[in-house]
Amino acid sequence: MDRRSFIKKASLAGAGAAAATVAAPAIAQRRTTWRMVTTWPRNFPGLGVGAQRLADRITAATNGELTIQVFSAGEMVPALQSLDAVIDGSAEMSHGAAYYWQNKSVGLSFFTGVPFGMTSRELAAWVRYMGGQEVWDEIYDQFGLQGFLSGDTGTQAGGWFQNELKGVEDIQGMRFRTPGLGGQVWQRMGASVTNLPAGEIFQALQSGALDAAEFVGPYNDLALGFHQVRKHYYTSSFIEPGLATELVVDKAKFQALPAHIQAIVRDVCQAEYDQVASDFYANDPRALATLINNHGVITHSHFPDSILEAGAKASMDLLSEIRQSGDALTKKTAESFVSALNTLRTRTEGTDLGFLEAREKFFKIS
Amino acid sequence: MDRRSFIKKASLAGAGAAAATVAAPAIAQRRTTWRMVTTWPRNFPGLGVGAQRLADRITAATNGELTIQVFSAGEMVPALQSLDAVIDGSAEMSHGAAYYWQNKSVGLSFFTGVPFGMTSRELAAWVRYMGGQEVWDEIYDQFGLQGFLSGDTGTQAGGWFQNELKGVEDIQGMRFRTPGLGGQVWQRMGASVTNLPAGEIFQALQSGALDAAEFVGPYNDLALGFHQVRKHYYTSSFIEPGLATELVVDKAKFQALPAHIQAIVRDVCQAEYDQVASDFYANDPRALATLINNHGVITHSHFPDSILEAGAKASMDLLSEIRQSGDALTKKTAESFVSALNTLRTRTEGTDLGFLEAREKFFKIS
Repeated sequence: MDRRSFIKKASLAGAGAAAATVAAPAIAQRRTTWRMVTTWPRNFPGLGVGAQRLADRITAATNGELTIQVFSAGEMVPALQSLDAVIDGSAEMSHGAAYYWQNKSVGLSFFTGVPFGMTSRELAAWVRYMGGQEVWDEIYDQFGLQGFLSGDTGTQAGGWFQNELKGVEDIQGMRFRTPGLGGQVWQRMGASVTNLPAGEIFQALQSGALDAAEFVGPYNDLALGFHQVRKHYYTSSFIEPGLATELVVDKAKFQALPAHIQAIVRDVCQAEYDQVASDFYANDPRALATLINNHGVITHSHFPDSILEAGAKASMDLLSEIRQSGDALTKKTAESFVSALNTLRTRTEGTDLGFLEAREKFFKIS
Repeated sequence: MDRRSFIKKASLAGAGAAAATVAAPAIAQRRTTWRMVTTWPRNFPGLGVGAQRLADRITAATNGELTIQVFSAGEMVPALQSLDAVIDGSAEMSHGAAYYWQNKSVGLSFFTGVPFGMTSRELAAWVRYMGGQEVWDEIYDQFGLQGFLSGDTGTQAGGWFQNELKGVEDIQGMRFRTPGLGGQVWQRMGASVTNLPAGEIFQALQSGALDAAEFVGPYNDLALGFHQVRKHYYTSSFIEPGLATELVVDKAKFQALPAHIQAIVRDVCQAEYDQVASDFYANDPRALATLINNHGVITHSHFPDSILEAGAKASMDLLSEIRQSGDALTKKTAESFVSALNTLRTRTEGTDLGFLEAREKFFKIS
C-alpha cells in the first residue's frame, strides 16, 4: 500500500478507529515489491551484475520499503521485450540500454551512445546539466515511462580481427559482427555487417562464418573466449565511446511513490552510473593483461588513419540523416546532443586529452 | 502533510494510550540532526554548492531521519579546522579535500589527487575495486573517522600567465601561486611557489606580487576575474589530473546509524561523485567560451614539452620520496596507488586516449 492510499484509507476509517489504523498500516505501507526485468543475462559481468546490485541497493537504502525483484533476460520475458513488459504492466522497471528501443524512437540511441559521440563524462554532463534529461523525458513520456542513467561501460574496444588492418581496403566485404548505429557506420565503410547474440559469436568466428567481431571490451570479451580464435585486438572503439545503461520506470507508478523513495531510486541510479564505470575501468585492464600475457593477444590502440577518417565521415553522414529525419523528437534530441557535444569536447579535448598525452609521453613509474 | 506529521496528529487525536506508545518511539528514532562542516565558502561554484546539495540529498532520501545542517567555511570553524571539528565532536561530518590533512598523513593526498596521478575515473576504480578504500580506511581509522569520495572537479586548468611559455627557462624564479604537492613540483622545476587563499590571488596578480597563478578551472576562475589581469591561460594541468572531494564522518557515530541510513549516505556520496564532475564538465567549457569570446583570453592546451618533461621528472622524484618516507601507511598507500595507476593507465591510455585523439582529428560536426 502506498502513502496516498494509506492516507485515504485512514481518512475513510474515521476518528473512532484512528488508533488501530495508525499503527498497522505503518507496517503494511513499508513493503512494496517491484519487478525489474533486464536485458542482461544473470551475472553478466559489469552489466547484469550491475542491474542486480542496483536493485539490491534500492532495497537496502529503502530498508525494504521498496523491494526490487530482478528477472534477468529470458526469466520473465526475452531481453528485447523488457521495455514492453513495463509498458504493459508486467513489470515496474526495466534495466537495459536505450538504443535497444530504436524501433520506438531513433532518438533513444543518444542516451546509450553513438559513433564518435560522447564519453561517459560528457553524456552525464549533457543529461544532468545541458537539457539531455528533458528531451529524454519527452520521448519516454509518450509511453508513460521515465528513464535514468544507471551505468556506463566507458569507451569500448574496437574488436577482434584476423590480421592487422592496414587501411580501409582491408575491411571491404569483411564479415563483421557489430550492432546498432555502429554497425551502420561499418557497413557504410564497406564491411559486411551482421548482428549475432553474444552466445553465437565465438562459434561463428571459429567456423569462419564471421571474419571479425566486436562485443564490449576485455572484461566481457575474455569471458567469451574470442582470443582463442582471433589474435589481433583493437582496444579503442570509435563507434562506442561509451555505452550507458538505463533504468526505466513506469512513470505514474514511480510518481505515486513517497518522495524519499523516489529520491533513493534516483540516487542509487546515479551512484551506479559511477559504480559500473569503476567496475569496467578496474577490470578491463586486468582482463587485457591476461589476454596479452597468458593468451598471446596482439593489441593495437588505434585503427589506421584511413579507417578512422572513413569512420568519422560515415558517422557524420549518419548523424546528419538522423537530424533530418521526419520524427520531430529525434531531431530535437540530435540537435541538443550535437550542440552539447560541441561545447563539452572543448573541455575533454582541451584539458583531459592534454593531460593524458603528457602522462603517456613523460611519466613512467614502477 | 507528510506521513510523520500525519501519524503524529492522528496519534494525538487517537482514542487509546496504546496507540500513542506505538507511534511515539517510531517518531523519536526518526529525527537525528548532524552537523556538516565544510572547507568551502557558501555557494562556491561546484564544490560549496556540491556540499550543500549532498547534505540536502541525504536529508531528502532519509525523509529527514538524518537531517544534515551545513556550516560553510568559517561559519563554525575555519576551513582548515573542519576535520578537527569532527575529531573533537563539534560536528559529525566534514566535506572537503583529503589533501588538506597532509599534516596528519601524507598518504591522504592520494585520495584527492597527485601530480601526474589518476583521473577521476581512475581514482574511483582504485578506491572501489583495487584496494584504495581499504588503505584510506586504515589511515582514517587512526582518528576514528571514515572517508567517502563525494565529488571530483575532473582535470583542472594549468593556470594564468603573463606570456606564452616557451620552455623551462621561462619559469625560473617565476612567482607562482599553486598549492600542495603540485606546488612542490613547480618549486623543483625552478618556480618560486607560494600559496594564497582564493580571495587574495586576484590582487596579488594585479599588484605584481605574483607573476602567475593556478586555481581550479574556467568555472571557478572566471568568477575570480583572473582574466582581467592575465591573458594566457593553460587549460590542461599536469599537477591536478583530478581533484576529489571527500565526506568524512565520525566512524563510531556513523556505524551506530541504522543500516539503511548508512547505505543512503554512501549512495548519495557516490551519486555526488558523478554530479560534481558533471557540473564541472558542463560548466567549465561554457565559462571557457566566455573567457575567450568576451574577454580575449588566449588559451594553450599544452605546456611546452620541456615543462611537461621537467614536471614529470619532478613528480616521479616526489612520489619516490613519499614511497620511501618513514610513515608505513603512507608508503602502503603510495604503493597501492602506483600499482593501480599502472594497471588503470593501460585502459585510459590504450582506449580512452585513442578515441579522443581520433575524434579530435577526424570528427567535425556543427
